Amino acid sequence: MTLTENLTVDPSILEPAGESISDSLVRTLPGHAYSSPEVFAKEQEHLFEKMWLCVARSSDIAKPGDFQTVQVGSENLIISRNRKKEARAFFNVCRHRGAKVCSAESGEGARSFQCPYHAWTYDLDGKLIAAPNLTKMPDIGREEYGLRKAHVREWLGYVWVSLAEEAPSFEETVMGAVRSRLGDIEQIEHYDIDNLQVGRRITYDVKANWKLIVENFMECYHCATIHPELTEVLPEFADGLAAQYFVGHGAEFGEGISGFTVDGSEGVEKIPGVTDDQDRRYYAVTIRPNVFVNLVPDHVIFHRMIPLAPDHTIVVCDWLYLPSVIESGVDLSKSIELFHRVNLQDFDACELCQKATDSRAYAQGGVLVPSEHHIADFQNWAADAIKG
Amino acid sequence: MTLTENLTVDPSILEPAGESISDSLVRTLPGHAYSSPEVFAKEQEHLFEKMWLCVARSSDIAKPGDFQTVQVGSENLIISRNRKKEARAFFNVCRHRGAKVCSAESGEGARSFQCPYHAWTYDLDGKLIAAPNLTKMPDIGREEYGLRKAHVREWLGYVWVSLAEEAPSFEETVMGAVRSRLGDIEQIEHYDIDNLQVGRRITYDVKANWKLIVENFMECYHCATIHPELTEVLPEFADGLAAQYFVGHGAEFGEGISGFTVDGSEGVEKIPGVTDDQDRRYYAVTIRPNVFVNLVPDHVIFHRMIPLAPDHTIVVCDWLYLPSVIESGVDLSKSIELFHRVNLQDFDACELCQKATDSRAYAQGGVLVPSEHHIADFQNWAADAIKG
Amino acid sequence: MTLTENLTVDPSILEPAGESISDSLVRTLPGHAYSSPEVFAKEQEHLFEKMWLCVARSSDIAKPGDFQTVQVGSENLIISRNRKKEARAFFNVCRHRGAKVCSAESGEGARSFQCPYHAWTYDLDGKLIAAPNLTKMPDIGREEYGLRKAHVREWLGYVWVSLAEEAPSFEETVMGAVRSRLGDIEQIEHYDIDNLQVGRRITYDVKANWKLIVENFMECYHCATIHPELTEVLPEFADGLAAQYFVGHGAEFGEGISGFTVDGSEGVEKIPGVTDDQDRRYYAVTIRPNVFVNLVPDHVIFHRMIPLAPDHTIVVCDWLYLPSVIESGVDLSKSIELFHRVNLQDFDACELCQKATDSRAYAQGGVLVPSEHHIADFQNWAADAIKG
Repeated sequence: MTLTENLTVDPSILEPAGESISDSLVRTLPGHAYSSPEVFAKEQEHLFEKMWLCVARSSDIAKPGDFQTVQVGSENLIISRNRKKEARAFFNVCRHRGAKVCSAESGEGARSFQCPYHAWTYDLDGKLIAAPNLTKMPDIGREEYGLRKAHVREWLGYVWVSLAEEAPSFEETVMGAVRSRLGDIEQIEHYDIDNLQVGRRITYDVKANWKLIVENFMECYHCATIHPELTEVLPEFADGLAAQYFVGHGAEFGEGISGFTVDGSEGVEKIPGVTDDQDRRYYAVTIRPNVFVNLVPDHVIFHRMIPLAPDHTIVVCDWLYLPSVIESGVDLSKSIELFHRVNLQDFDACELCQKATDSRAYAQGGVLVPSEHHIADFQNWAADAIKG
Repeated sequence: MTLTENLTVDPSILEPAGESISDSLVRTLPGHAYSSPEVFAKEQEHLFEKMWLCVARSSDIAKPGDFQTVQVGSENLIISRNRKKEARAFFNVCRHRGAKVCSAESGEGARSFQCPYHAWTYDLDGKLIAAPNLTKMPDIGREEYGLRKAHVREWLGYVWVSLAEEAPSFEETVMGAVRSRLGDIEQIEHYDIDNLQVGRRITYDVKANWKLIVENFMECYHCATIHPELTEVLPEFADGLAAQYFVGHGAEFGEGISGFTVDGSEGVEKIPGVTDDQDRRYYAVTIRPNVFVNLVPDHVIFHRMIPLAPDHTIVVCDWLYLPSVIESGVDLSKSIELFHRVNLQDFDACELCQKATDSRAYAQGGVLVPSEHHIADFQNWAADAIKG
Repeated sequence: MTLTENLTVDPSILEPAGESISDSLVRTLPGHAYSSPEVFAKEQEHLFEKMWLCVARSSDIAKPGDFQTVQVGSENLIISRNRKKEARAFFNVCRHRGAKVCSAESGEGARSFQCPYHAWTYDLDGKLIAAPNLTKMPDIGREEYGLRKAHVREWLGYVWVSLAEEAPSFEETVMGAVRSRLGDIEQIEHYDIDNLQVGRRITYDVKANWKLIVENFMECYHCATIHPELTEVLPEFADGLAAQYFVGHGAEFGEGISGFTVDGSEGVEKIPGVTDDQDRRYYAVTIRPNVFVNLVPDHVIFHRMIPLAPDHTIVVCDWLYLPSVIESGVDLSKSIELFHRVNLQDFDACELCQKATDSRAYAQGGVLVPSEHHIADFQNWAADAIKG
């Protein structure tokens, strides 16, 4: 009898995935890629605290002075809108003695941010505008001692931030991911995501590594086993081929399916810009490292992840519809229920995988079948990114 | 005034115990042997994931397809019985993407084990027998991609496993421990433990290191202080000499004691094979690293330990009786109550010791009095075992 | 845009505070001084397990055999009074096998301390006086195997201990701190703290580093922002200058303020020894590392801290009054309420600071304004102390 040898490697070095074992099988990352605190710390540093991350819906901070406090990697940030209605992102740390400036999760119409400890006060662009005895200390630069800033962009009606000194190119990374998947940017613009409204938001607390969640989203070999409702609506998913596999391809609704709903019944009003080619089709897009977008003719399902620990990830999922649909008060529960079930089914599976990541039986990882081979690219991208 | 110096040693190196201090006293292991995560990790690797461990009662998996999932060191295993009624032990990790195959703690009559993620399916010998599209992937070896196996044996009506590449000799280690204690194997066979039935199982959650529990079981210097009921039944225990001290010796019931019960009242039907020499006597046997067996004429008390952390151990205790006794429905509460009280008294004491293991006042450990000197052998065995 | 670089330093080395940035600003300690487990472990070793720490009110162990078990650094101690009414401090660890001797938090009139495991028994001076078979083991020294002792002193009606091999000079450290602040020791003796009685004790559980609590106590730049009641009673605090800044200076009660109460109303009977100079004044004294004393004409507020983790500190606060005041049953709630509110306001602020100590935006620390510059002395003292 032969058991796997014990793993005795530098926990922050990951063997590359994708090595060919046989015609059908290639290797995954080793188990410790999903459980090691060292690997996770490097991912926070090199991925989540450097890349463009989606952190809020733009409408969550609709007006000047509206704000949210959000977690980005290991940092807490204030996301707000200034008087010119521009989005701004600040480290939530007073420049004086380091108190957390905003404890609230969100708020509306703030005129400034005042530290609750010594009342150092910052305007909506982060500039220091008041403090006890500040006029007696003219050598304190108001900009120099303003709140520290992060890079910020808005796109698709979402706020994206980067904590990098020099932010990577938004066009190449975020927009590039959409372009690679759909062929060109226009394909997503047809859905007019900026102007859709949130019909429902559900936040999931998942006891699994963020990469397991990405990998799950990238393949459909599991669909026949765990997604009965989804494969009913998209019969080609029952064969295990993920739509993301082919550039520009969208999975077609089955015959007799009227809409992207839990029982295949009629959906709601179609988004006007959606083309005939896009009608009756489902498109899934992964924007590394933390976003999944799902496009169907009458709504958009937008996931963003917040990794908290090697084995703990928050996923926030928005269901977006036309404003006219939201205003009409029409029942959305059947379209929400479909992907809510898919989410629960997927996150359960990811949690089952997490439990075995530190077993010696998974020390060298597992295997990918042909319909999963493209996952190795993601795995190697993640492993390479933390070498820097 | 002189206090003990601070401990500044490699936390995984343990000074040998047993060094003589004076006629009466020899040293114990240092305190960190019981609190250090490094020491515990080495014990898991070198002891609990290599030696033969008792993990289940054979009757817990009586029929083909019955199974239990059990913790062995840091690993989760499926223990089950195949169609030939042979016990089998598998790592509970799918060979495909690493999901936990069985989430249930136990089950009956399974025909196969199917991974809930992508439906890879294994038979009761662990062989891969089905998976989506498996017929299109003929290069996947059904044995090669079967569940990883652990060594398994059955003895005394219990299932024992070893995760070692090459399992140690069962005859030398497990049976050898019994032989050293009782003189020969026949002595335990008289109790026909294979064919006894579980009258009661109690699981204890102990906030103490597993070695403190072993050491407690090995000495009786504490008996007069904490075990009033036990010393009433076994008066020689009041003198502090543990029965395990002498090969073949069993502690004799006191005059006026009719049975091994909480009040010394009559027990139940005697086990037929018990000899006259063994009658009215109590024998305790330690089988390193995780089993204690207690033999009395009418029942057997069988403890097995599952260490979870340096300061956390699960102890499962079975009270075993003749099938005819169990079937008769006779009241067993007085015999169960005796050792249940002993267990609670012992585990309380172990928890009090655990609290001081990281004090500077115990950095160099404590002392063993003459009736405890044999504990140093166990301590040095444990310390030596993790050097490998 | 420029963000702060990542911190990549030995976590146990702290850059000195106090470096001048501009006329108004000097640097604080870096953020990791408040969050690093390595720094905290060194502080426990070099400060809390070496210096004189206040651990109990003398009246908590009024009579021979009264005892308390208390946490000192990482150690648990028994504080008790022997037959000569002298305070004694013992490590709460049996010399035999290391069990915790006393599990109770406190008790009265004990004649000895008996280990619950094997009944080793120690008298009120810690000497081993009994054990099973002890008479058969004459080579066991009764003093040598007595409970390990810590240094102990009583002053101001409190019990102070030091776990150092050689205790530092009590006169230079504890009494020296009072002398430096008030000018001479007589100034505190006027309050006759030994003979006051505890009118109220409140224990606070603070999720902040102990140094943040000290620093907060040392400055009043925050008073105008968070202490409306206190600045009403002591108007000079609204200007942000802490009374501790000037040797011998006490902050004067405002006009129209009758007593040190939450609404400025009349207090209780004045302590007879308080001089005219001290009347209608508030004095605050910091005794490093764990005591703050607050003196007002009719009572004394005495804080002591017990650090449990980098981000967790227990603070025990006693309000002390003349015995005649306590006996009279007069309502004390207005004087207690004032500093209870101050405590809650301060500890909230400290918790807000704790949250940002591991942000990259506070990696190099913050800044001190002129009325806070003296905090840098405390910070450098703490940083220097752990170098040893």
